[in-house]
Amino acid sequence: MADDLASRLLEASELHGDFVLSSGKRSPVYFDKFRFLTDPSLLKETAHAVAGLLPAGITHLAAPEGAATLLVAALALETHLPIAVVRKERKEYGTRSQVEGHAPAGARIALIEDVSTTGHQVLRAARILEAEGAEVSTIVLAIDRGGADHLREAGYWVKSVARVEADGAATR
Amino acid sequence: MADDLASRLLEASELHGDFVLSSGKRSPVYFDKFRFLTDPSLLKETAHAVAGLLPAGITHLAAPEGAATLLVAALALETHLPIAVVRKERKEYGTRSQVEGHAPAGARIALIEDVSTTGHQVLRAARILEAEGAEVSTIVLAIDRGGADHLREAGYWVKSVARVEADGAATR
Repeated sequence: MADDLASRLLEASELHGDFVLSSGKRSPVYFDKFRFLTDPSLLKETAHAVAGLLPAGITHLAAPEGAATLLVAALALETHLPIAVVRKERKEYGTRSQVEGHAPAGARIALIEDVSTTGHQVLRAARILEAEGAEVSTIVLAIDRGGADHLREAGYWVKSVARVEADGAATR
Repeated sequence: MADDLASRLLEASELHGDFVLSSGKRSPVYFDKFRFLTDPSLLKETAHAVAGLLPAGITHLAAPEGAATLLVAALALETHLPIAVVRKERKEYGTRSQVEGHAPAGARIALIEDVSTTGHQVLRAARILEAEGAEVSTIVLAIDRGGADHLREAGYWVKSVARVEADGAATR
C-alpha cells in the first residue's frame, strides 16, 4: 500500500542540522530530495504512484535536467514510454537542441518534476517542449511544495503524489 | 538475447547530418547518447547488461550528474542498490555536498557512466567519492569510446557493455 508514501518521502528527505538555504536564510531543517530519489525502493514506489496519476493518451515523458531524471527513468521502465530531457541551456554542439531524447511534434507529454516550490523550472521546461511542437498534457510533481498552484494558474493540469503544507506536514 | 545490444545502442544513437562537435570540428555523424538512454527498452536492456558486469560485494551505485543518472536509476531498480550522484561543482547551500544521495564511508561503489571517451569525467567522480571515504570497486561504462584504457591506467577495474573502435564499429 502506498497510503503512507507521502510521509515516508518526507521522512527520508528531511535532514536536521544547521543549513544555509538557497535563499540565504539559515534553517535547522533541510529538505534533500536526493534522499528519496536515490533510494531504490522509494524511487520505484514513487514512480509507481506517478504512473497511477497519468491520464490516458500520454505518449512521452519529460523532465527538466537534474535530479528529476532519476524519477523519469524509473517511470519510463514502469510505463514503457520514451523520455525527453529538457536542458537549462541549449547545447552548443552536436544536436544544438535544448530537448534531448524523444519529444516529436505532436507528442502528448507528461512532464515530471521531483519537487516544485515556485513552478518556475517546470513552467520553463513546459514552454520549451511546446516550442518544439509537443503538447504538455499533464504535469506530475512527486512532491508539491507550492508549485502546483502556480502551474495551474498558468493553465496546466497538475497532479502530485505528496503535498507539503507551509507547516511541513505531508498530505496526499 | 543481448548479443546484439552493442550494435543496437550504436544504431539508435548515431545521427547523420551536418554537426559541429564539442571539439569545434564538423562531422556528418554525431553520437547522441540520449537516444538510447531515453528509450525505455534500450535503457532497461542496458541496465540489465551493466548489472551482469558488477562484481560481488558492491553496496552502492554512483554516476556523475547528467545523462548517466538515467542509466543509474534503471540500474538501481534492477539491483536494489542505493545511488550516489556526483556533482560537477559542490552545492553552495543545503548539504553543501558534492555527492548527493547515498555514499557512506566504507561503501563499495560501482561507478557508472553512459559513454566515456577520455575517462576524465569518470576519474574526477571517482576521486570525489574516494575523498568521501567510499571505495570505487569497479567502473562500468555502457559504451567505451576509449575512456576505459585511461581509467585502467589510473588503476581502476573497468568493464563496458559495448566498445566503439576508432572506425566506429561496435564490439562487445
